[in-house]
Order: sequence, then structure tokens, then C-alpha cells
Amino acid sequence: MHSLDAATRLTRISCRRLRGATCPAYWNFGGPFGGVTAATLMRAVLEDSSRQGDPVSITVNYTARIAEGDFDVLSRLIRTGRSIQHWYVELVQGDVVAANATLVLANRSKTWGHQSARAPAVPPPQALAPLSADNRSAFVGQFEFRFVGGAPEFRAEFDGQPRTARSEVWLNNAVPRPWDFIGLTTASDLFFGRIYFVQGTVFPIATVSLSAYFHIGSAGMAALGNRALLGVADANVFEDGFFDQTAQLWTADGRLVATTTQIVNYRA
Amino acid sequence: MHSLDAATRLTRISCRRLRGATCPAYWNFGGPFGGVTAATLMRAVLEDSSRQGDPVSITVNYTARIAEGDFDVLSRLIRTGRSIQHWYVELVQGDVVAANATLVLANRSKTWGHQSARAPAVPPPQALAPLSADNRSAFVGQFEFRFVGGAPEFRAEFDGQPRTARSEVWLNNAVPRPWDFIGLTTASDLFFGRIYFVQGTVFPIATVSLSAYFHIGSAGMAALGNRALLGVADANVFEDGFFDQTAQLWTADGRLVATTTQIVNYRA
Repeated sequence: MHSLDAATRLTRISCRRLRGATCPAYWNFGGPFGGVTAATLMRAVLEDSSRQGDPVSITVNYTARIAEGDFDVLSRLIRTGRSIQHWYVELVQGDVVAANATLVLANRSKTWGHQSARAPAVPPPQALAPLSADNRSAFVGQFEFRFVGGAPEFRAEFDGQPRTARSEVWLNNAVPRPWDFIGLTTASDLFFGRIYFVQGTVFPIATVSLSAYFHIGSAGMAALGNRALLGVADANVFEDGFFDQTAQLWTADGRLVATTTQIVNYRA
Repeated sequence: MHSLDAATRLTRISCRRLRGATCPAYWNFGGPFGGVTAATLMRAVLEDSSRQGDPVSITVNYTARIAEGDFDVLSRLIRTGRSIQHWYVELVQGDVVAANATLVLANRSKTWGHQSARAPAVPPPQALAPLSADNRSAFVGQFEFRFVGGAPEFRAEFDGQPRTARSEVWLNNAVPRPWDFIGLTTASDLFFGRIYFVQGTVFPIATVSLSAYFHIGSAGMAALGNRALLGVADANVFEDGFFDQTAQLWTADGRLVATTTQIVNYRA
């Protein structure tokens, strides 16, 4: 079993209550890596027998610190329309809701299509060095990061000169795993905090809300294989304790498979 | 009372159940304008006595068609942390959940700040003609749209040549109203479907999920007055019935006050 499947594994306790557990391999500063939490909530819906269609969007709010150990995931089917289905899911520990999410699924049908966005021209992943393991956060070692322009260099302190928030990075699981909605949901949170790039220094921050949009269905997913995806991430504004972070995930042949936005809490 | 306040008015029925009604003045193709629905869910939280802090983000999912008439709004306080508060809200008609939302509020505190994004250089609103009223959707008449480069011209049919998805437009309430979180939430959905711009034609589409992020607190809001905000909207991809749409709301002096993303269902 791939470590990402082990980390997002859920056991059904009753019709709409599942049980999971945090996984040390995906630990971040102060709790499980948010991408794995999002993927766990995604899995609760994907594995429900009432599920119809493929994920179109997910919004996850990180509502409390998730403690090491077991948690329950409670899901509610909100509405099944002609082709679109809506879910609400909570991750609970004791009487604390530690994360909640809304999800949209759809039976996609073939329509006129157009990709107005273009992937940036960057070197292929094999031309770039992988980031070496990070001794701060275990989850970093579960993935391969190949930054365009070289790995970011972080210092002990911000020198007062803001740098660009934008970065381009080839992303993959360290042990390659065919892309699916669990993998894409996880990857949607795989962009280091933009404040690290702007300030050139690393310190604890907390994603508060993350939304991901999937521009590919199950049928198209097979073509992705387990090859690295190009992530392009940026931010607009850092203000009074919150910054936004936007990102795109591209295939090597320039197809946009997912877009994501999050808002992050910082103290600096 | 401003028409936007009338349209989003809620009467408290019990502690966490409020009652509202759809408003003909903000009618769209097949239901109430989604921005007003989002603002109504926002108001349910803003007017709750347990509310702490200012909105940081809201995600609204449009789960079913909202029928003309009364609806109830049910809110649940999910979690109050040290400075961040999480809510879950539903709009119900009979036993149908027609919209649901998660919201994040926070007591913002002064931190280091940086705006990495820059507003585009555009003519001031008074140099641009307002869009004339649209006889298709009542809600259009409740706002003032001053498009940079002139009002978009729509034809009966798409000619097969995709145009740019990007547009810049000065936005305001037709009857000016001081900006607040009700107004900004409404304005977050005030960008015509990007597919209209790309195809150059207008037809019914449906927002499925909308997220808005607020980069301003109550304290900064006063400085906005009731002056027009510059909206910059774009899209990345149109594929198998869904397209994404991203937008920014800027003040005339270049401050980014809100960013928003939505995913829209289309048949074309």
C-alpha cells in the first residue's frame, strides 16, 4: 500500500461515520500535513456508495489543531441533482470539529472546451535537482520537489526586502503513485507558504481555508500516469495576519488539471 | 433602506434559524443573483450575537435552484479559536438545501504586510460609459458596470473563435452604498460568466461553488466609502461542462480588497 493511501485510509464505523488516524510520515510543524487531511475528507466521499460522479471542487477549512491519533469523519449528502452532487464532511476528535469541507461532484459530459491559460516554459523535471529532505517537517520527505531555478534558500531572518511570491516546481510523490483525486487533492496543498518565498525565511504558519478545483475527470486521469506535475504558485497580498496563495497544477504537455487557492494565517 | 439590504434581510425565528425571501429586484436567469444569496448567508453570521471578528473567507455552494419566495437560513458555529472562528450555514426551502456555505472570521491584528500583486493601469470610472440595463436579468440594473475598453458586445451565436477571458470593469451599486462585507460578498459574484467573453455570446450558466477572500478588515472598510471598485476577472479553462473564474477587487488607489474564485457549470 502506498504511504498516501495508508495515511488517508478510513474504516467505516456506520453508514456515514468513518474512522481514520493521523500518520507520522505526513507530519508537519504542528499537525498532519493539510493536503493529507483534505485528501482524507475527499476519500470519505469517494468511498461512499451514494457518490455520483467525479470531484469538481473541494473547500476544506482547518478549524482546530488535529491531535496525533484517531479521528472520525462524518459525511452528509446535501443534494443530488441531475448531474451535480453536493456533500458536507467533518473531521472530529472528541467533541471538537478539527476540519470541515464542502465538496461538489459531477457526472461530466463532453462539451466545447478551451484552455485560455498557458503553462510557462520551464525545463523538464529530470533537468532539475530534487529538494533534499527537510528535517523540520516529515511530510516533505514523502514528495519530490524540483524547483525551477533551484531550491529556495531560506535564512534565519527576513532582511526586510520582499522577494517574488511566485515559484515553479515539479511535484510528485517520492514513491511515484498514479494520479487520482486523492493525489491531486493532496498536491493542491503542496506549495510551501508564499511568505517563505517573499521573506526568504521559514516559520510556522497555518492554512485556514483551501479550495481546489479539478479540471479533469476520471477518464482523463489515466493519461497522467504517475509523472510529475508542474506547480505554479503565487500570492497577491499579505495583510494583518493573513495571506492568500493561488496555484495551478499542469501536466508536462501543458494541460491544466487543477487550480487551487488558500488563505493562510501568519504572525510576522 | 438600500435595495441590497432589503434583499439580504433576515428575521430571526429562533437562535440559529433566520427567515428571508427572494427579491425580484435581484433576479437572474433562473433564480436569485448568486452574489445576493452569498451575501444573505454572510449576513446570517454577521448578525449572530456569537460572531467574533471580521470575515476572512466564505465558500458558497449553490446546491439547488432557489424558488421565488421564503427561505430559512440555519447557521452552526463550528469552532471559536483564539482569534479565528468557523461557521457552517445552510439556506433551506422545505426539505431542500438550496445553498450551503462555510465561513472563516478572524480578529485581525496588525502584522508585517506586503501587496505583491499590482492593480492594472486603467482609466478612472468617470471616463468610461456605464453599461446600459440588461433586459434579461433584473439584477444587472442594481449595479453600475463601467467596462474598460467599452461594454462587451454579445452576438446570437459563438463564431468558433475564442476571445480573451479577461476583463476589467469598475463596479458599484447603482445606488451607491458604503462598502461592507455584505457589499463585498455580493460584488465577488458580479463578474459576468467568462464563457460570455470567450464565446462572445450569452446563455444560461450556473455558478456551482464560489469562494471569496477578504483582505481588509472593518477598520479599513471605512476608507472605501461608496466609490467604485475595479474588478479584474479571468478564467483558466473550460472543459466538459465546467469553467473556472478568478477575480480581484481593487480600490482606485491600488489596494486589493478581495479575491474570488468560482466554478461554473455550462452546456455549450
